[in-house]
Amino acid sequence: MGNKLRVGILGATGAVGQNYAVLLENHPWFDITYLAASPKSAGKPFAEAVKGKWFMDRDIPKSLVDLVVGDAGHPPAAFGKCDFVFSSYEGTKEEIQKTEMEYAKAGFPVVSNNSAHRWTEDVPMIIPEINAYHLQIIPIQQDNRGFTNGFVVTKPNCSIQSFMTPVYALMEQGYFPRELNVVTMQAVSGAGYPGVPSLDMIDNIVPYIGGEEDKTEKEPLKIFGDLVVVDRKINSVSSEGLKIRARCTRVPVIDGHTACVTLQFDSSAHNYSYPSLDNVKQIWEDFEGLPQKLSLPSAPNPAIIYRKEENRPQPRKDRMAGNGMAVTVGGLKDYGDRYSFVGLSHNTIRGAAGGAILTAELLKAKGYL
Amino acid sequence: MGNKLRVGILGATGAVGQNYAVLLENHPWFDITYLAASPKSAGKPFAEAVKGKWFMDRDIPKSLVDLVVGDAGHPPAAFGKCDFVFSSYEGTKEEIQKTEMEYAKAGFPVVSNNSAHRWTEDVPMIIPEINAYHLQIIPIQQDNRGFTNGFVVTKPNCSIQSFMTPVYALMEQGYFPRELNVVTMQAVSGAGYPGVPSLDMIDNIVPYIGGEEDKTEKEPLKIFGDLVVVDRKINSVSSEGLKIRARCTRVPVIDGHTACVTLQFDSSAHNYSYPSLDNVKQIWEDFEGLPQKLSLPSAPNPAIIYRKEENRPQPRKDRMAGNGMAVTVGGLKDYGDRYSFVGLSHNTIRGAAGGAILTAELLKAKGYL
Amino acid sequence: MGNKLRVGILGATGAVGQNYAVLLENHPWFDITYLAASPKSAGKPFAEAVKGKWFMDRDIPKSLVDLVVGDAGHPPAAFGKCDFVFSSYEGTKEEIQKTEMEYAKAGFPVVSNNSAHRWTEDVPMIIPEINAYHLQIIPIQQDNRGFTNGFVVTKPNCSIQSFMTPVYALMEQGYFPRELNVVTMQAVSGAGYPGVPSLDMIDNIVPYIGGEEDKTEKEPLKIFGDLVVVDRKINSVSSEGLKIRARCTRVPVIDGHTACVTLQFDSSAHNYSYPSLDNVKQIWEDFEGLPQKLSLPSAPNPAIIYRKEENRPQPRKDRMAGNGMAVTVGGLKDYGDRYSFVGLSHNTIRGAAGGAILTAELLKAKGYL
Amino acid sequence: MGNKLRVGILGATGAVGQNYAVLLENHPWFDITYLAASPKSAGKPFAEAVKGKWFMDRDIPKSLVDLVVGDAGHPPAAFGKCDFVFSSYEGTKEEIQKTEMEYAKAGFPVVSNNSAHRWTEDVPMIIPEINAYHLQIIPIQQDNRGFTNGFVVTKPNCSIQSFMTPVYALMEQGYFPRELNVVTMQAVSGAGYPGVPSLDMIDNIVPYIGGEEDKTEKEPLKIFGDLVVVDRKINSVSSEGLKIRARCTRVPVIDGHTACVTLQFDSSAHNYSYPSLDNVKQIWEDFEGLPQKLSLPSAPNPAIIYRKEENRPQPRKDRMAGNGMAVTVGGLKDYGDRYSFVGLSHNTIRGAAGGAILTAELLKAKGYL
Repeated sequence: MGNKLRVGILGATGAVGQNYAVLLENHPWFDITYLAASPKSAGKPFAEAVKGKWFMDRDIPKSLVDLVVGDAGHPPAAFGKCDFVFSSYEGTKEEIQKTEMEYAKAGFPVVSNNSAHRWTEDVPMIIPEINAYHLQIIPIQQDNRGFTNGFVVTKPNCSIQSFMTPVYALMEQGYFPRELNVVTMQAVSGAGYPGVPSLDMIDNIVPYIGGEEDKTEKEPLKIFGDLVVVDRKINSVSSEGLKIRARCTRVPVIDGHTACVTLQFDSSAHNYSYPSLDNVKQIWEDFEGLPQKLSLPSAPNPAIIYRKEENRPQPRKDRMAGNGMAVTVGGLKDYGDRYSFVGLSHNTIRGAAGGAILTAELLKAKGYL
Repeated sequence: MGNKLRVGILGATGAVGQNYAVLLENHPWFDITYLAASPKSAGKPFAEAVKGKWFMDRDIPKSLVDLVVGDAGHPPAAFGKCDFVFSSYEGTKEEIQKTEMEYAKAGFPVVSNNSAHRWTEDVPMIIPEINAYHLQIIPIQQDNRGFTNGFVVTKPNCSIQSFMTPVYALMEQGYFPRELNVVTMQAVSGAGYPGVPSLDMIDNIVPYIGGEEDKTEKEPLKIFGDLVVVDRKINSVSSEGLKIRARCTRVPVIDGHTACVTLQFDSSAHNYSYPSLDNVKQIWEDFEGLPQKLSLPSAPNPAIIYRKEENRPQPRKDRMAGNGMAVTVGGLKDYGDRYSFVGLSHNTIRGAAGGAILTAELLKAKGYL
Repeated sequence: MGNKLRVGILGATGAVGQNYAVLLENHPWFDITYLAASPKSAGKPFAEAVKGKWFMDRDIPKSLVDLVVGDAGHPPAAFGKCDFVFSSYEGTKEEIQKTEMEYAKAGFPVVSNNSAHRWTEDVPMIIPEINAYHLQIIPIQQDNRGFTNGFVVTKPNCSIQSFMTPVYALMEQGYFPRELNVVTMQAVSGAGYPGVPSLDMIDNIVPYIGGEEDKTEKEPLKIFGDLVVVDRKINSVSSEGLKIRARCTRVPVIDGHTACVTLQFDSSAHNYSYPSLDNVKQIWEDFEGLPQKLSLPSAPNPAIIYRKEENRPQPRKDRMAGNGMAVTVGGLKDYGDRYSFVGLSHNTIRGAAGGAILTAELLKAKGYL
Repeated sequence: MGNKLRVGILGATGAVGQNYAVLLENHPWFDITYLAASPKSAGKPFAEAVKGKWFMDRDIPKSLVDLVVGDAGHPPAAFGKCDFVFSSYEGTKEEIQKTEMEYAKAGFPVVSNNSAHRWTEDVPMIIPEINAYHLQIIPIQQDNRGFTNGFVVTKPNCSIQSFMTPVYALMEQGYFPRELNVVTMQAVSGAGYPGVPSLDMIDNIVPYIGGEEDKTEKEPLKIFGDLVVVDRKINSVSSEGLKIRARCTRVPVIDGHTACVTLQFDSSAHNYSYPSLDNVKQIWEDFEGLPQKLSLPSAPNPAIIYRKEENRPQPRKDRMAGNGMAVTVGGLKDYGDRYSFVGLSHNTIRGAAGGAILTAELLKAKGYL
């Protein structure tokens, strides 16, 4: 274990924090050595701090049961205890922004699951299969803010993970999206615990999740955006010409977000010709992202799974594909001028803690950790 | 009761037939006097024929418990027993087409819930609030086929009822749809009993329902279509210029189909100007269809209910609006060039038996019964 | 409406309070004229006070939308506004006990849904079909405490309503229970809103509900208990010789508590002989309680419904029997020395607000209101 | 792989058959080499035979996809293809009895999941932790029927597995049960696919499962029964003095049967003294059955897990304990004269295919295979 990087978890007692605890058990590169949460939990053994609110189906990893929780709001408490941190720190947007930057200033790389810094210009928002090259923003961030080793990197919202990689795979082959309509059917675990009341989820669905539609419509634009760095200045991170319309709904599913997508390509691109059904399937089957090429420990391989059964993907059957890290697609239909498909990914693995872990693995492989 | 029309139910033992039985209890105009089903059920009292497969939450109406079931495949058995029939006759498309026309030939008006005749040119497919004037096809049908009093009228699929009236209300005011993307989230009662296995509906959704997407994309075109009758010939029933794309999914909800719709208007229409959010809401609130104007017994009033809460409509809370006959809409969003909304209606009431009953009421009010 | 009694609701914004609001709409004897809740809600129109936490499937009754909420902790605020109150006042046991007695002292009869006073010796705990004669404790309570017109009456816990009346019907005929084992399967509405997290109720059950087993084992003893009043003193309220063992579980059902009961009779009673299956069914079918004899507006008739289908009662199909006020039983099995059956009642109607309303109707019929 | 025993599956395309297929993937001792089903499936590759009815969450094991299905009704078809068979053969009781004995006569040991032979006197019904010594019936069976190598062994119903081992652990220490009341809350996977309709399992439970209560009340008597073999004759297999009363209900849970048990001990036993709560917990914690002592590949260790949290066991959280082979207990309550507890086990693993696999491992370890 001596050579593993030592990991801290900020917000360790919350829903995402618990996922980190479970997912990092037996990780080949990372070892949880520090857990931090609110002052109320600080000073307690982890098992006591999460008593009555541990909601994972698996038990608390044995090595964490007695680990005494630190105060997440106090970065110096982490000194000497970990090499970098995953942040699911809870608070207002301003508190999160401030605290994550304090950890960075204190020398800790921060891989954040929070939305607070996703739109901070010098903070990259990463899906490792798509925009690993955005990591070159990190030295600019460090320059801008006088950080030495620390920095902040974010991952995007869980609601977009079910369609981003399949769309990107097509972009790579010259099929740029112009319009994307998506209706998501999101699992209740996305709201944490206690989260969504059962009175809303028995014999019912709720066609609204606060804030999700806005994130779903905007975050892809930054991730797909071109990055032009001139003189260590970021000139542009944006994705012009793509219009996303999202309706986000909550359905009675424990884990696994489903996305029903309609996709129109930008036919103005050079040499563009509308792809055939077989083209699209082949592109998905052949897709290999950087995490796959680097054989990162958590990288699913394949990254995209196309199911030919007409009634797939289904949350309970497909969410664990690639250990919860793959995206499963199906139901591909060609409307002559656009495609429709259904995408599915595990929201608390690929869409949250697992996605952050893959990002950290990428950072390590690329020398940032 | 003497003045009520006597009603027969074809396919009385099935899911839709059971709904007719329950919904017509205490109807002011109609009285069930004849129940018919497959030869296997024929000759048995109704309660015995549905034993072990009565799946309504309410009990069998007392007046029907001992009514002896007839053979639905033998129209003469209905002579003298009823004035018209609701058909949820079960069989192959060809069998249904043949049997329904035999009833019509035998003198019975047939209001059918089946899809078999929806695309027969001289058979109207009716949503009473929208295309009552299509009933003028009836005398042409009778002419064509040598019927005297009988005829066949159909109602469309349950999956489209959650958005058709709201869209039509806008059409009436000059806002014609050019593109309509819809993702439906359909209740399990739509598949009858036993229908959808619970193994598919616990901690899961299924993004596919056989045949529904095709019906959802095409049936609106006939209903919205212009009808030009020249010399007792039907010249055209079609809705050019409207493109619908549908994804139909099954969710763990007992009753109530939800539709997430994105709607683009045809800006080429004369004097067209894009409506404001307030325009759209006002149009929906003001909408009054023919059933409302005629105060038909089953007509919901209002026909369209706009909920301003951002998390509505919800199946369990809104399906019984207007006794299950209204359409509830919400979540209206303006994308500058198109609107997005969520519509909901009760699939077994408005979307099946209730919709057929309203159609029969319209037929009666218009002198066809 | 002039002759109706004016009703106040304490705790009007909570789950039980909302049930009162809906159930008393159009009540023939009672009219809600006063709504009271915590200081946070006081001063707001009811619709505003429950905004975002109205969880009933039906909308707020129109007459209550603009009714300004009073401070439930301040009894004088109710002066002149109502003739009696239903209490679902929220607070610690001590706060509830104190506040309910203050209302009584101020002259208001209080019909309470709370458990706080259920074990107060001079406060009756009533199931109208069973122990209406316990109401004679009221004048003793008034004597003890110097109340003039006010008093406190309670109703028992929702978990026992599914078996109490069927057991009592047998007691009336001389079959006294000695041992009663019960496993309840309780609906989520019993926990209010937000209540039970959906993460606990999708693909899961929870075999524990805090405090319910204790209530289920003890409350029947007081209700079935003999009352001996000597010189205006209560000498005994207890049910010796009955032993109840309860396991209370939570299941993914919106409304309707199911109880699986095994019942052993006390064979030592005079002239006892073990009843036959037909005896038991006949006793249940013939049972008529005082509410039925008095034709109280909310009294279900019959009070007990025996379903002969082997797979009933079921929550969704049977909870609304008798407008949610009846108890449905089924699955009767004779083990030679004891019986087993399944009972079901609606927990928020019969088991909470509806049960309290029936108690108030009884109080009115008996001249206490 | 050369040294593994070659396994055939009778009824390979059904629900239990699919479980065998998944559970035996990578088994250290057994290797599926033969799949057999009805004549309709015979001759097709396995993937084709289960098309549209594969309901496992995991995909078909790669090695079985193309394996051509044989005719299960024709034992000679298995010659040379496997060393023994697991039977989930489907048919009437008589057909199953006949077919399983034909395989035995043809030389195949048969480990059956079916109920057909459970009450055949010379066929043992085995829970490996409890009554391994009943396997000595096998040579008697072979004698009686003139079998050489073949024989039939059965496993009991899934509904009893959640309480049998905990009760047996107490018996081993001298605490014999006299009365056992159990209410089961059974998962839908127990009914196979399509199985239980979703209309019965959304916002509902069903307090009845055909045949289960009878099996639950009787099968434990044979398993716990003393076996006296005199002159190669079975003199007695019965468990006098134990009375079981069972209510079996279906709940909306995918996998995992829960049992709420009340247990009274036989106080007439020599040296009996009522055990303390700590005794009972200690006995469970210390329990080790023969499969654990022999370290059989599928044996859970520990076999019984006591959860001290008051709201456990829960199906979704505890069913996979011991890879789905352990029994989890909790909620232990002492009523002074009897105990109450909640037991849980995975119905398709421990309660069906997994239990049969453990039985086969025991047979191998004991030299019967």
